[in-house]
Amino acid sequence: MAAKVERLKVNFKTLEEFKKFKEYGIQELSMFEDLEANMVDNDSESPFYGIYYGDKLVARMSLYQIDAKFDRYFYPPQNYLELWKLEVLPDYQSKGYGKLLVEFAKSFGLPIKTNPRVKSSGFWEKMNFKNVEYDMERDRGENPLVWYPEGVEAQH
Amino acid sequence: MAAKVERLKVNFKTLEEFKKFKEYGIQELSMFEDLEANMVDNDSESPFYGIYYGDKLVARMSLYQIDAKFDRYFYPPQNYLELWKLEVLPDYQSKGYGKLLVEFAKSFGLPIKTNPRVKSSGFWEKMNFKNVEYDMERDRGENPLVWYPEGVEAQH
Repeated sequence: MAAKVERLKVNFKTLEEFKKFKEYGIQELSMFEDLEANMVDNDSESPFYGIYYGDKLVARMSLYQIDAKFDRYFYPPQNYLELWKLEVLPDYQSKGYGKLLVEFAKSFGLPIKTNPRVKSSGFWEKMNFKNVEYDMERDRGENPLVWYPEGVEAQH
Repeated sequence: MAAKVERLKVNFKTLEEFKKFKEYGIQELSMFEDLEANMVDNDSESPFYGIYYGDKLVARMSLYQIDAKFDRYFYPPQNYLELWKLEVLPDYQSKGYGKLLVEFAKSFGLPIKTNPRVKSSGFWEKMNFKNVEYDMERDRGENPLVWYPEGVEAQH
């Protein structure tokens, strides 16, 4: 069975699957509340993409497009993707699922910024992500990593 | 010996002390490079505040004032403090040092936003920090906590 990346739907089943992931926070709680209050439709599109193994969600990430006017990372300034909550469940790690998700994100052809929460620099290096030059006002203690598509470079 | 909070100076001794803290990243590396390249003066002021126990730095945090025009958290919109890298070394925890740092931050009388990296919600609750209402465009998967001084409320 070839693994494939799919956009996750907002529904109670997806939200139940999310509970298995370590990075569970107000984003998930807010999705749950919106669904309960009928503020979003069941099965509407979420910012999450994931990989199922059979019925089970085993990897996920969130992708969100930032408008060029807010771009402080890339030159020339342009729309870019912010990637967060990339996570593969422990029993499914080292099978290439993380790589598959990141390659999916790259396939949009936009620069990507992420802000990894855990020690995972080896992974991101293999994915060809680079450190930025620290800017306190912009980065505020974070350690952003970025991916430059062909023709894009760091903003100075 | 009463513990007191002091503003940390940028010098090689401070940067050596920083290596004991878990949250060490490009901010510290960039301070080190700037000092080596004489781009900042030795003993210039850093955004860090800390508590010494004798000669040893045992707790620290970074504080940075965000201009009202970027405020998306508080009403009325105003200057506020972003607090990050609050950390007490393991042997010095549960002695009130974290509380002392947060009280120091509150003493400026400005609203505070932080984005705790670790499971520490009990601590922040005791410090009277509140969850925000999640806004994907603004919060991007983060779990910000805020402190409202008298007369300040959430921005809607």
